[in-house]
Amino acid sequence: MSEQGTVASDVREPVTEGEPVTEGEPDAIAGDGPDGACVRDEHGEIIFDVFARGCPSRETMEHITGRWGILALAALADGTYRFNALRRRVDGVSEKMLAQTLQALERDGMVHRAAQPTIPPKVEYSLTPLGREAAGRLLDLIDWLEGEMPEVLKARTAHDDARKSPAPSAGPSTR
Amino acid sequence: MSEQGTVASDVREPVTEGEPVTEGEPDAIAGDGPDGACVRDEHGEIIFDVFARGCPSRETMEHITGRWGILALAALADGTYRFNALRRRVDGVSEKMLAQTLQALERDGMVHRAAQPTIPPKVEYSLTPLGREAAGRLLDLIDWLEGEMPEVLKARTAHDDARKSPAPSAGPSTR
Repeated sequence: MSEQGTVASDVREPVTEGEPVTEGEPDAIAGDGPDGACVRDEHGEIIFDVFARGCPSRETMEHITGRWGILALAALADGTYRFNALRRRVDGVSEKMLAQTLQALERDGMVHRAAQPTIPPKVEYSLTPLGREAAGRLLDLIDWLEGEMPEVLKARTAHDDARKSPAPSAGPSTR
Repeated sequence: MSEQGTVASDVREPVTEGEPVTEGEPDAIAGDGPDGACVRDEHGEIIFDVFARGCPSRETMEHITGRWGILALAALADGTYRFNALRRRVDGVSEKMLAQTLQALERDGMVHRAAQPTIPPKVEYSLTPLGREAAGRLLDLIDWLEGEMPEVLKARTAHDDARKSPAPSAGPSTR
């Protein structure tokens, strides 16, 4: 019995894991309640801290590193996209999720949405200067990860093999 | 009516948005089916591509940039943690989600789990060399984001104000 095997029976916070990108939540920026808002320093300046669950920096981090946010930002680093072209590039995203993702990134000042008053409207998305800075860091992470995937797959195989043969000294296994 | 306002009625793929971290999915590494697996180059080498929905690099990216994965890796950059201490550090995570997150990161070779055969077992988590490389890039992103949060909040205010006053030339509003 490992401690991982127990499931919390004292989950006090509402279960929010796995929720899609949300928008328009109240920004309790620097409260003093027990809800994990970020704190202020001795000069009254907010100290943003992604580890504090109520800090808006955590919400924005989830927008830019979420399942679709990271891919949308990385794609837009290539240039301007129309909605449907971006949807094709971000393989697997639904129309609804891509729209929600872009709305959150637009509100956070990462993505610029330019709508021309034509019929049908021509809507183009591009990165803001802030979005370009985020995308640069995300592309660095993506490039590194794609290069390290052989290591990751080796680790997975070793992990799965170790699970198949529970006793390391039990002699040759079928692997 | 913007194109964002329409919701896809032709969602063909199973809705997987917002699922928790999964583990043990089949690794269709480089298939040739229509399921978006990554492709091979002319030498038969796999080209890992997070934009391909069936590429395992996308799954690993979601493990390290997921809601809890990014915070767990950033916390472990400080040093070794026991499970409950890590759970306190990653404010808001449930026991179940943290256990799932750590299992996925362990399988991907990012996190090392050391269990001592005591009663109760003492289990400690630390970063592998690969995990340290990932954490370094994530910390860079976090540090940048926390520093830019005043810009983000300014963008949010401007965005919300623009929505409140739909006609930009309508004169002074209540903002």
